[in-house]
Amino acid sequence: MEANKYLQSILHNEIPLTRAMEISVAHCDSNKVELTAPLKPNINHKCTAFGGSLYSVAVLCGWGFVFHQMKQNNLSGHIVIQHSEVDYKLPVDGEIRAVCEPGDKKILENFIRTYQRKGRARIKLKIKILFNEQDALLFSGHYVAHK
Amino acid sequence: MEANKYLQSILHNEIPLTRAMEISVAHCDSNKVELTAPLKPNINHKCTAFGGSLYSVAVLCGWGFVFHQMKQNNLSGHIVIQHSEVDYKLPVDGEIRAVCEPGDKKILENFIRTYQRKGRARIKLKIKILFNEQDALLFSGHYVAHK
Repeated sequence: MEANKYLQSILHNEIPLTRAMEISVAHCDSNKVELTAPLKPNINHKCTAFGGSLYSVAVLCGWGFVFHQMKQNNLSGHIVIQHSEVDYKLPVDGEIRAVCEPGDKKILENFIRTYQRKGRARIKLKIKILFNEQDALLFSGHYVAHK
Repeated sequence: MEANKYLQSILHNEIPLTRAMEISVAHCDSNKVELTAPLKPNINHKCTAFGGSLYSVAVLCGWGFVFHQMKQNNLSGHIVIQHSEVDYKLPVDGEIRAVCEPGDKKILENFIRTYQRKGRARIKLKIKILFNEQDALLFSGHYVAHK
């Protein structure tokens, strides 16, 4: 199965709310994970995306990135979010699009090496929600993977 | 209508995802807002509450608190979340229960006075998600109310 379809099936099967939110995996490879969700099921009273939905798409984008990295390295385990900071910059009145694309390969290599050695590792990821090519939300999350 | 029923109707009508999450307002007065949500629609692959659901219940608990304060003072306007920080302390494998109970009346009075004078005010609120009488999640949110 393609990586994006596989990640989407994991999200939809294991977190039922992602189906209500209609989250899709638009892109999934070792460099980038991109999730989208339509506005309608995630709308708020101002006809923009609900802040909790924006957060959920962002936190799952980072979770999916870690999940994919581990799978690529034939590793399995639990991945949990431990800490996050969020800045809401602009309202989103259309499709929600979250992107995790760390760039720095060393951070990923350290994460995988630590997990292989200790069965537990931590990674800090930045995720953006983009709207009209601008940053609508900046998310920083500390994820922990453990056996 | 009772304050908690009124806040619940606002949440359910204006943010449809709160119905999918089955969020209820357990308490709403000028000192405290408490929201709950059952585990089932908010579950994740580890049979605990999804981190995005915990966040959403917490952010709405603070939003509801600001909404109620403004309503008590006959003020109306938009309330948005601008920044948040979250620490996930313990998994929640039962009902989600978020509590916003600031205690410090001066912060609330300043917020209302500033809004009355300028039509825009900011308030920082702490919200806890409690599970088995322990802090499961600590949420700190900066909310902005504006006309």
